[in-house]
Amino acid sequence: MPYPEEAEGFQVDSPDTYTDFKKRFFKLKPFGDYDVDVKIEACGVCGSDVHTISGGWGSQKFPLCVGHEIVGRAIRVGPKVTLIKEGQRVGVGAQSYSCGDCKQCKNGNENYCPVLMIDTYGAEWPDTGIISQGGYSSHVRTHEHWVFPIPESLQSNLVAPMLCAGLTAYSPLVRNGAGPGKKVGIVGLGGIGHFGVMFAKALGAETWAISRSRAKEADARKLGADGYIATAEEGWEKPHLCSFDIIINCANSSKGFDLEKYLSMMDIHGRWISVGLPEEEGQVIKAQNLISNGVLIGASHIGNRQETLDMLQLAADKGLKGWVEELQIGSEGLKEAMERMKKGDVHYRFTMTGYDKAFA
Amino acid sequence: MPYPEEAEGFQVDSPDTYTDFKKRFFKLKPFGDYDVDVKIEACGVCGSDVHTISGGWGSQKFPLCVGHEIVGRAIRVGPKVTLIKEGQRVGVGAQSYSCGDCKQCKNGNENYCPVLMIDTYGAEWPDTGIISQGGYSSHVRTHEHWVFPIPESLQSNLVAPMLCAGLTAYSPLVRNGAGPGKKVGIVGLGGIGHFGVMFAKALGAETWAISRSRAKEADARKLGADGYIATAEEGWEKPHLCSFDIIINCANSSKGFDLEKYLSMMDIHGRWISVGLPEEEGQVIKAQNLISNGVLIGASHIGNRQETLDMLQLAADKGLKGWVEELQIGSEGLKEAMERMKKGDVHYRFTMTGYDKAFA
Repeated sequence: MPYPEEAEGFQVDSPDTYTDFKKRFFKLKPFGDYDVDVKIEACGVCGSDVHTISGGWGSQKFPLCVGHEIVGRAIRVGPKVTLIKEGQRVGVGAQSYSCGDCKQCKNGNENYCPVLMIDTYGAEWPDTGIISQGGYSSHVRTHEHWVFPIPESLQSNLVAPMLCAGLTAYSPLVRNGAGPGKKVGIVGLGGIGHFGVMFAKALGAETWAISRSRAKEADARKLGADGYIATAEEGWEKPHLCSFDIIINCANSSKGFDLEKYLSMMDIHGRWISVGLPEEEGQVIKAQNLISNGVLIGASHIGNRQETLDMLQLAADKGLKGWVEELQIGSEGLKEAMERMKKGDVHYRFTMTGYDKAFA
Repeated sequence: MPYPEEAEGFQVDSPDTYTDFKKRFFKLKPFGDYDVDVKIEACGVCGSDVHTISGGWGSQKFPLCVGHEIVGRAIRVGPKVTLIKEGQRVGVGAQSYSCGDCKQCKNGNENYCPVLMIDTYGAEWPDTGIISQGGYSSHVRTHEHWVFPIPESLQSNLVAPMLCAGLTAYSPLVRNGAGPGKKVGIVGLGGIGHFGVMFAKALGAETWAISRSRAKEADARKLGADGYIATAEEGWEKPHLCSFDIIINCANSSKGFDLEKYLSMMDIHGRWISVGLPEEEGQVIKAQNLISNGVLIGASHIGNRQETLDMLQLAADKGLKGWVEELQIGSEGLKEAMERMKKGDVHYRFTMTGYDKAFA
């Protein structure tokens, strides 16, 4: 069986043409002893993909093939690989490498490695000149640490979005103690938020969805929410003053965001953790706003390997799945995905599928 | 022995005349079953006193007698008091009451009680019309929960500033895990900060003082600092990237404060806790600034009863004492204290003493 040294995928050339996907071959990084080649079957469409190729997060290395919610088959494993077997169905998320040697990597914080952080797309593999390319493509090549076996019972197209969106919600939930006896809020019912509600409930927390209008209330309750807060309603925060242990802020925009009201709902030393990265300017924060309840404000960056495995197992154990609309991978399907993501017309995730058709 | 229904103290009438202290009698709150009357011997001069009477924190209830780092003698205890004995030497800090009934009060968070928070000065005692008056006076009347026995070995004038400044540093240190194996920074070597260095070291943490210039380095090391960072020096943050578990920000001003550099020094999920309340506008914070190390930003409000008792015991066990300059209580001494506090000309706390002379 011939091993691929190139992958074929759909690249964008600039932010001005971010809905124009060109099918091209590009080089993979040199195959390393710990690498796994993954033949892709499905890939979720993440908000990051849109922010990145449309220029919202600043300059990027074009041409670029994005996509980092990847599920596929391990078709080749390096001689030193022990975590993955050839033929296994696996996932790859937003990160593809870290140094592995620093204090942070050794303490389960490889997703915050300060030494070397290689994103699944748009990062340069050291000493190669090769820019990592994502999952809107036929193959990815990834260090085994960042490749995750997918439990049998999970369907590829439904589990794919968990690899970034799901993990982004899951990691801060478990790191901040979501579980029985805790009151957890999820702000923003989108790709990340719908997993947030699902996982917070699955972890045993009293789970509240927090959205602008009541439009998504029925969905939120189906996802497992015990309660629902609509911030367009006068006095929405009042019944909840000083009561939330954790709120995960998944909002994708900070426009018109009255942070003070949200923070007033936090119990003493509650955690307000942002996982969305709005393109707008930040919020002015004074110590005065934080002192009445000693709330802690933070942000969270995806998750580590163990959390990924735990999340997938939780999903398998409880039968959790992303709410997914499938689109055919290709220039047309990706254009539709980008246009609808920009408008927020997605409930709650697109997964690109039909890879066999696109890459013969 | 006649019990006082009034106290005599030094009041300020407005922010415009905040160095003009008038000696007057004022009514104490009605004596309750759990109340303790304290005849004052010493009172520290807190930054809050200056902010409050000079108008920096907004409008206040004048005329007002400030001072909330009080040490004195319990000369009368209510019939239901069990925590304090008549004749005992005791302290009173910045808070004099909380509801005692809410979830927060019952969980050791009475210093964040969302129901009823009575500051030692400037707060109205419910249903009385009486505004609480502080320790630049002959007596205070305080609920026993907020009155703390002072260990014998601690001198009144040196321990007084611990009741607010000390506790303000101590509580966030212990709540955020300062101890052996942790790297702790204290920003701003003033009244609170000098206790921060002292207590962080006493708790067993690797302790760094962080100040603008090297002017206070010798002092910091005498207080117990293992290391010293001068932020006027180019590249000051570089040797410390991603290494601090906790930084307590005691800075009294946020002017020219490059928060991003400070935050870059925090280890993953490190805690940046502010206890100073600058009068200026706050900092703009974007999730992007917090995400590379998942740092948590918070603020802390004094401490609870148990922490106060623990802090005093730690001070007694380790022979810790505030660095204090004594001033004679009275219009002149208070004027000098305020003027020198405004200029930052204090190393590191004033304690007003000589109460017997002032209140015959």
